[in-house]
Amino acid sequence: MERVRTSDIGAYVGRRVRVQGWLHALRLLGGVSFLVVRDGWGMVQAVTEDAADLAPLDEAGAGLETVLAVEGQVVAMPQAPGGVELHHPVIEVITPVRDEPPVPLSKREMKVALPTLLDHAVVANRHPARRAAFRLAAAAMAGFRATLQAAGFTEIQTPKIVASATESGANVFRLDYFGRDAFLAQSPQFYKQIMVGVFERVYEVGPVFRAEPHDTARHINEYVSLDAEMGFIRDHLDVMAQCRDVIAGMLAALGESCRAELDMLGVALPAVPAEIPRIHFADAQDLILARHGVDVRGEPDLSPQDERWLGEWAREAHGSDFVFVTGYPMRKRPFYTHPDPRRPEYSNSFDLLFRGTELVTGGQRLHRYEDYIAALSAAGMSPEPFSHYLEAFRFGMPPHGGFAIGLERLLMQLLGASNLRLVTLFPRDLNRLAP
Amino acid sequence: MERVRTSDIGAYVGRRVRVQGWLHALRLLGGVSFLVVRDGWGMVQAVTEDAADLAPLDEAGAGLETVLAVEGQVVAMPQAPGGVELHHPVIEVITPVRDEPPVPLSKREMKVALPTLLDHAVVANRHPARRAAFRLAAAAMAGFRATLQAAGFTEIQTPKIVASATESGANVFRLDYFGRDAFLAQSPQFYKQIMVGVFERVYEVGPVFRAEPHDTARHINEYVSLDAEMGFIRDHLDVMAQCRDVIAGMLAALGESCRAELDMLGVALPAVPAEIPRIHFADAQDLILARHGVDVRGEPDLSPQDERWLGEWAREAHGSDFVFVTGYPMRKRPFYTHPDPRRPEYSNSFDLLFRGTELVTGGQRLHRYEDYIAALSAAGMSPEPFSHYLEAFRFGMPPHGGFAIGLERLLMQLLGASNLRLVTLFPRDLNRLAP
Repeated sequence: MERVRTSDIGAYVGRRVRVQGWLHALRLLGGVSFLVVRDGWGMVQAVTEDAADLAPLDEAGAGLETVLAVEGQVVAMPQAPGGVELHHPVIEVITPVRDEPPVPLSKREMKVALPTLLDHAVVANRHPARRAAFRLAAAAMAGFRATLQAAGFTEIQTPKIVASATESGANVFRLDYFGRDAFLAQSPQFYKQIMVGVFERVYEVGPVFRAEPHDTARHINEYVSLDAEMGFIRDHLDVMAQCRDVIAGMLAALGESCRAELDMLGVALPAVPAEIPRIHFADAQDLILARHGVDVRGEPDLSPQDERWLGEWAREAHGSDFVFVTGYPMRKRPFYTHPDPRRPEYSNSFDLLFRGTELVTGGQRLHRYEDYIAALSAAGMSPEPFSHYLEAFRFGMPPHGGFAIGLERLLMQLLGASNLRLVTLFPRDLNRLAP
Repeated sequence: MERVRTSDIGAYVGRRVRVQGWLHALRLLGGVSFLVVRDGWGMVQAVTEDAADLAPLDEAGAGLETVLAVEGQVVAMPQAPGGVELHHPVIEVITPVRDEPPVPLSKREMKVALPTLLDHAVVANRHPARRAAFRLAAAAMAGFRATLQAAGFTEIQTPKIVASATESGANVFRLDYFGRDAFLAQSPQFYKQIMVGVFERVYEVGPVFRAEPHDTARHINEYVSLDAEMGFIRDHLDVMAQCRDVIAGMLAALGESCRAELDMLGVALPAVPAEIPRIHFADAQDLILARHGVDVRGEPDLSPQDERWLGEWAREAHGSDFVFVTGYPMRKRPFYTHPDPRRPEYSNSFDLLFRGTELVTGGQRLHRYEDYIAALSAAGMSPEPFSHYLEAFRFGMPPHGGFAIGLERLLMQLLGASNLRLVTLFPRDLNRLAP
């Protein structure tokens, strides 16, 4: 008998089907056995009053997470999960599991300490809520790519092993490359800019590596970065418009392909305004003083508290979960940042705050060779380690800019998760390298 | 005036348009100037008999690769590249380039030595033929994902920094992870298997890192691996059927979205038979003896010459550019390989040869915890470093298998390139870490 996915079973009412998967739960209630089979797409409940039906499990000593096939009659049952159940089940054990799983997968919430969860992520990722989050991650990546492809962007895959720790100097992982020092890329920043010279519009989805010794709920040391870069812009406002469309495209992709997952996780997708409200960095500091009596003017960056206040303001004043902050001071931005021509102490950069937390960073970059030489000199940096990067500008680059979205950060805020590690498949942090 | 992409200009005959891009070529022929503008999607030629039209270039001292905008009248001109040209051009210099580019981008073939090309990849990647190859790479990745998504696979992104150099022991890059040793993942093999326990069917597109000290035309040390893994298979034949569909889907994606690039590169897409011919490893060795008089029986692997011979045979006997070789001897395959139950010295593994060279490696994996313990023990390996990986099997895994395709390898063979570096954006090899 051909195997049917649990997510498709509703179409087979009145027929016998074969499902395959894991024994997710097994309950005995008043002489009736309920056996929940979880496959890669969902779950279905098999029901029997005949204990002999369970004999194959008993004979194999097979408990929860046993891999099995169940053939049964599909019966519509509105009160059952998914609206159907399997009657008269015939069970075949494929891979018996005799030990108790290290985390309670069959519970609605696992309620185990975070270290336990992460130590056993190999198994814990099977939990329906956890895997629903990772299905959202997949859909978000797909939405990112689809939106950019439709806008003429080309996908690139750039090297992760790089020759010099140039971009920020610190916080890079060093590796032994055939006896020489090499480093792991902190971001595809230089390469995506270089590739604007080739394709004008490029994007990349890939790992980035940050050797930041932070031990917080919002930091991990390897994450998935969704990067885009585009040429022939007027200024950062063009980049922000593209960024807005990408965020809207990602959320639309979630709504289209992950309805069941969103419902399970209780996630309401935010609306993305056609024009996301924006506020200049200096005005944001004035606003915080006016609304909250806290004077952060002169600070070169926004604190998490500042961001939360701005998020509240965007919601109250504009009914938006999103707000762009533009014009961050040049002195805190990397050397390739384009200044605001009218107020050169401020930059043509932006952050996108989502529900009061930074989700995207982006901006316009310098594009003239002379400007790079001047910017490096002003920063007291030698141009020599940047010679390959600078070649792109020496041989013609248009005004350009781009942005980067942290995939796990997006999920964290969308799900209201308390820790980035809860939405990361196999997190890497200061103390964790496995699984 | 709104900017028009060069690839869209055919729709604007009789109208004035504005194009933006790079000055790809500039020729003076009998008093007529031909100016070729290259943008992210193609090229268009502007023509003028009035030298004054070129004054903005002269005034800026601007040569090839200058970034510019050109407004002009679109005129149908069958003999022009693309069938149209721009007349009465008005040129605006955006970013002047005064130095001569390090490689001759405007030539049909660059004809520079490989090291020169790679030293200047930042600029050389702008060459139309080279960027056409990278456009194919993007389309191939898109085809890979689309085929697998349609078959119910979920995308994953697994960590590239790993705790132990377990998979093969040798040939891994070592890095300093906050004072501890860590390693770069040679493949997502363990993680994609683990994730079969979550989603049943998973795929990943990402970088893999091989510290192999080979200096050949077919090896680089960081490449893009297209990985898939699927559960509830009968044996490796199910994996091969999925692999066949993926290859067919990738080639179809190239045909649909890259017609201009394929034409420019002179690439004819191979047909993928509904059933790719296959031959067992032992039969392949017999065939080589019979057809070529060379006795390789007893060798544990196929040589490049053996693969070429099998490729010829597949073409002659089956009219196919593709052939599966199955049943490689267990002793050369990694410990997680599933043996052939009927001939346990051979494995349920396969390679897919494309035009006589290995393109894909795959197979069925062990899925029972006890089998892993026995396999590790037989290989003289301790199970301890594998404890997280083994947890997946201890808590229930179905029969499963998968495959991996090297993106650059696919391009190399499709294009008939003489060196893998020619189809890699920024290659990493024994001697090269930049650009």
